[in-house]
Amino acid sequence: MVFKVTVNSAWRATRTLWLLVLVSLSVCICVCRASSPQEDSAMENIVTEKKAEESHRQDSADLLIFILLLTLTILTIWLFKHRRFRFLHETGLAMIYGLLVGVVLRYGIHVPRDISNVTLGCPVNASPATLLINISGKYYEYTLKGEINANEVDNVQDNEMLRKVTFDPEVFFNILLPPIIFHAGYSLKRRHFFRNMGSILAYAFLGTVISCFVIGLLMYGCVMLMKKVGQLGGDFFFTDCLFFGAIVSATDPVTVLAIFNELQVDVDLYALLFGESVLNDAVALVLSSSIVAYQPQGDNSHTFEGMAMLKSFGIFLGVFSGSFALGVATGVVTALVTKFTKLRDFQLLETALFFLMSWSTFLLAEACGFTGVVAVLFCGITQAHYTFNNLSPDSQDRTKQLFELLNFLAENFIFSYMGLTLFTFQNHVFNPMFIVGAFVAVFLGRAANIYPLSFLLNLGRRNKIRSNFQHMMMFAGLRGAMTFALSIRDTATYARQMMFSTTLLVVFFTVWICGGGTTQMLSCQRIRVGVDSDQDNSMSITEGPERRSTKQESAWLFRIWYNFDHNYLKPILTHSGPPLTATLPPCCGPLARFLTSPQAYENECQLKDDDSDLILTDGDINLTYGDITVSTDGSGAHTSGGTAFAGAATSDDLDRELTYGDHELVMRGTRLVLPMDDSEPPFTDPHHGLRM
Amino acid sequence: MVFKVTVNSAWRATRTLWLLVLVSLSVCICVCRASSPQEDSAMENIVTEKKAEESHRQDSADLLIFILLLTLTILTIWLFKHRRFRFLHETGLAMIYGLLVGVVLRYGIHVPRDISNVTLGCPVNASPATLLINISGKYYEYTLKGEINANEVDNVQDNEMLRKVTFDPEVFFNILLPPIIFHAGYSLKRRHFFRNMGSILAYAFLGTVISCFVIGLLMYGCVMLMKKVGQLGGDFFFTDCLFFGAIVSATDPVTVLAIFNELQVDVDLYALLFGESVLNDAVALVLSSSIVAYQPQGDNSHTFEGMAMLKSFGIFLGVFSGSFALGVATGVVTALVTKFTKLRDFQLLETALFFLMSWSTFLLAEACGFTGVVAVLFCGITQAHYTFNNLSPDSQDRTKQLFELLNFLAENFIFSYMGLTLFTFQNHVFNPMFIVGAFVAVFLGRAANIYPLSFLLNLGRRNKIRSNFQHMMMFAGLRGAMTFALSIRDTATYARQMMFSTTLLVVFFTVWICGGGTTQMLSCQRIRVGVDSDQDNSMSITEGPERRSTKQESAWLFRIWYNFDHNYLKPILTHSGPPLTATLPPCCGPLARFLTSPQAYENECQLKDDDSDLILTDGDINLTYGDITVSTDGSGAHTSGGTAFAGAATSDDLDRELTYGDHELVMRGTRLVLPMDDSEPPFTDPHHGLRM
Repeated sequence: MVFKVTVNSAWRATRTLWLLVLVSLSVCICVCRASSPQEDSAMENIVTEKKAEESHRQDSADLLIFILLLTLTILTIWLFKHRRFRFLHETGLAMIYGLLVGVVLRYGIHVPRDISNVTLGCPVNASPATLLINISGKYYEYTLKGEINANEVDNVQDNEMLRKVTFDPEVFFNILLPPIIFHAGYSLKRRHFFRNMGSILAYAFLGTVISCFVIGLLMYGCVMLMKKVGQLGGDFFFTDCLFFGAIVSATDPVTVLAIFNELQVDVDLYALLFGESVLNDAVALVLSSSIVAYQPQGDNSHTFEGMAMLKSFGIFLGVFSGSFALGVATGVVTALVTKFTKLRDFQLLETALFFLMSWSTFLLAEACGFTGVVAVLFCGITQAHYTFNNLSPDSQDRTKQLFELLNFLAENFIFSYMGLTLFTFQNHVFNPMFIVGAFVAVFLGRAANIYPLSFLLNLGRRNKIRSNFQHMMMFAGLRGAMTFALSIRDTATYARQMMFSTTLLVVFFTVWICGGGTTQMLSCQRIRVGVDSDQDNSMSITEGPERRSTKQESAWLFRIWYNFDHNYLKPILTHSGPPLTATLPPCCGPLARFLTSPQAYENECQLKDDDSDLILTDGDINLTYGDITVSTDGSGAHTSGGTAFAGAATSDDLDRELTYGDHELVMRGTRLVLPMDDSEPPFTDPHHGLRM
Repeated sequence: MVFKVTVNSAWRATRTLWLLVLVSLSVCICVCRASSPQEDSAMENIVTEKKAEESHRQDSADLLIFILLLTLTILTIWLFKHRRFRFLHETGLAMIYGLLVGVVLRYGIHVPRDISNVTLGCPVNASPATLLINISGKYYEYTLKGEINANEVDNVQDNEMLRKVTFDPEVFFNILLPPIIFHAGYSLKRRHFFRNMGSILAYAFLGTVISCFVIGLLMYGCVMLMKKVGQLGGDFFFTDCLFFGAIVSATDPVTVLAIFNELQVDVDLYALLFGESVLNDAVALVLSSSIVAYQPQGDNSHTFEGMAMLKSFGIFLGVFSGSFALGVATGVVTALVTKFTKLRDFQLLETALFFLMSWSTFLLAEACGFTGVVAVLFCGITQAHYTFNNLSPDSQDRTKQLFELLNFLAENFIFSYMGLTLFTFQNHVFNPMFIVGAFVAVFLGRAANIYPLSFLLNLGRRNKIRSNFQHMMMFAGLRGAMTFALSIRDTATYARQMMFSTTLLVVFFTVWICGGGTTQMLSCQRIRVGVDSDQDNSMSITEGPERRSTKQESAWLFRIWYNFDHNYLKPILTHSGPPLTATLPPCCGPLARFLTSPQAYENECQLKDDDSDLILTDGDINLTYGDITVSTDGSGAHTSGGTAFAGAATSDDLDRELTYGDHELVMRGTRLVLPMDDSEPPFTDPHHGLRM
């Protein structure tokens, strides 16, 4: 009797799990089969309705495959986590399941040729977005789906089933990537991000461009070689090579960061990698669209031309800054709305507003011709930095959890789709030479990004990026969702098809091999783990002289930003910060009083907590405050040392602080912070400051 | 100086709000304008790409309109809630904003005729789902969108803009309704629902069918009259009338229930209304599709035919029970998965799994040809009743909040779209006679549902549905999202267009007038408010003799269900309930031990809490347990009085209980429950029960 075996609960769970896996897969495949053309005797005479219904059923079944795939992935992830099995991350797993289902769909299911696809040879000159067709007196509306290669026409009719599980690539950019990118911005660990801002920006902007051009040049060499050997089956221009360079430069170390998080790896390394990967997605996206926009005039459309190059560069700048501005703008609007209304009393409304405003960023950017995904990234960062502080605690949790869930679902969906598409995509061009060339180029491109830039940055940083960090960053350059989405966006030409197939292999390799080897690499490079991110400052002191001060690096950038943010932006957009009446010049008095929230006067103690994620130590805020004499006159307006004074004081404090040793500063920070909590807020009547 | 005026914070907030409202609306309309055909010099030579991009921009702008509308709605709702203004619910408000934007889109924006829409007159006989068109050597793929009336062809070309903001009606059924309906099921107040189950089922099934036929017959009379007077501009068959009856029978008292919730109206009334409206959506949906499926054979396709009628009835039963079974099945699978895995340690995975499984219900039902929305409803109820108990507390919150948010967004989206469509829909047929007839019919149909059924139910109920409750139920028969979605699903014929326009007016009227007058109606009918739903039993005692016992009503249904659920379903699907080893016959011993979770033995005290939402008083569980002697032998298996005995005991206890007075029972319930919390669970080793 099978039940007589002694089983423990984990084994029982495993058995149940695999039972479910089998049942789900068989259901999934049965449904696929069942949904292929079927008899439905009820509505025989209405052909179009039946067609539409059939198509809807098929769509539901296709989507169901993915949902069940995700469910399986979740169950297996749980099993892995339960057993502390770290060699395969959930994304790698999703790809494997996708591969398996792809094989089944490709070879296991045969759908008879659908004879009702008709090819028309009508004498039309344009291809309008909407087409009205008069079929025996009735008008039918058709919408344009896209152009199809002449040699694909047979495929289209043959493999309706496979084409059905192939999503419109724009789905990635319009539905799946936005939540992923927003979540990345929203969950950026801001303290460490801002501390390493200079280096992150260098890696993300300069590094991505370097990587793009290095890979592009190498691939051009490879393609030239292939042409000579006679292995090239179609056109492959230099712009194509550059485009390939741009798309494979978008790193996505989601696997690595998940392990970093779990093992609590050094926060600076985490910040560098996370910041770089978040921003370089945006850079690579805009870069690739500028490369596509490179269109020299005249007949010879693939030569170098200065004007076209400049124009591409202009497009890059315009699109990037436009998306940036839009993203920040909607973030700011959300912050203002949540600040000046009492929405926090109704958490559902607050969460819904937050969600809608963040989504509208994307739509607004797309409607204006900018890049929605980039806008959403900067919107996420702004929301986290300002709006988040205005939300009620309940909404803070809700929004975090909501975007965490959306991110999780979208990410796993993309990765399982990636696995699936290796078998279901019908125009793969696997060229061994190109693939080998691409792997070499990707490796060298990443190296040309990390090592030279790290060397240059180390000249300016006091907290050097050590060589083991550099090796780890090199190793952690996985390619993921963004690379895939960019490469599948356009697979019309031979060059693009070859790129797509190669990109898929690059993603598979990096996610499985580099992602799976993260723990080994960490121990091999002797990178310390188990670092509590809140205590790293004090820990770094005990570690050695080269980590003693994290202050000087990007000091000028940081100082400017910090002063501006702390004195003006935070008070305008949140309830915390110094009252604007104290920081703005006196001529702006009425405006300052209008914008300053009554809580700002009360919150002067609380603001340390809000701000502490931004600044190096908590000491300097207190110093700033210590120097401003806040007094009130009869009208309730604040008089202080004035803006110039306040600003100067802050700079002085920062300077003074930067000359101190780290150890002393931390001590001072802790010493100075604590007594402030007992100090009385200057006002207790919230309306007091508004009357004049 | 404007800032010198003394303002309080609420006023300032209001001002900021309206400023934002204005800015948003102008942005929204600017974007609409900006997105109409524009110059984009970069890609002049690629016509299709530009077209696709243009179309994408337009889509983004259209969606943006709705997002901004929702944002405005949220802000205004906040203002209303802030001021405790109850005359207009958020859904009514969303409609008003939708109306305003509809007016602007219709009359304010003029888009030049898009000349690139081409009407082809090709000699094709069929209308395939996919069309390949060979345009000067290149192949373009087109997908079928639907049939268009011959007289609309000009409109299509004229009002591209208005047609763009018109969604595919299937969006409602596939995207917007599922979360609404799932949320309804998931948030059903189960205790009061099950207590009134008999009445609710009567109102939902019998009542909806009565209402459908009464309205159908009245409308048929009205249509006949119109034909005589010469006011009918097209065909209008009896099946059309019945179809109209079915769609306007779906009540959606979301406004009323929101106010009920806020004012804490009598829980029985709440349960009756909520249960009825949730279930009758499902009934009306399946009913309407069975009416559409009514297709007598032969030429004369609009006469009565017995076989076709029977077939329609069969379709109704088949689709309803199939959807029910699928919904319950996926709920049960989710419960089993969450019971037997330790997913609760990873809340994100748990929530994601819950979400995906619930979604897969919908897709599975649609793929199998059943009704996804109905399946989702029963899935929601099952998830709430079983799976919810297996989730970690964190996931319980997350899933509740997630579906609350989705429900909120979808609901407000539908209502604002409803407002918009009054002006943007292009084939309205407003016929005064039909409209007046419809209002009368809707009123009489509702009356024919509520009053006769209440009379019949009161014959069997000991807790009578009093006449003021009946009037309130009559008044609360608002029409909402489901009615709208059903009526917009098919607007191809003259009859359907007239129905759609009339339905819109019915929805507007009921939501604004009936929804807005709820508070007045409540006080007018002297229905008590401020009832704490957990204490209503004790309150009913003090109220009067006619409310003393709520027990006898639906006693047989309730007793059967309760015994089965408590003895078998709960122990199988959750960690609570009596161990299956005690309730199943001894021959099923191994299976019972396999299915019983180790916690079940420990949770015997805890299960009172889980179950208390189901049963009338907590006393009977304790009695059941008091009678079963739970003892353990060496192998850890439970021996008890045996199933037959346990079952009999439960029945006896229920009987005994039903003869007691309410007051005594409540007392006894409280007295008996408390000491049990101190009793030791029989097992402490979770694995003990598994070894044999």
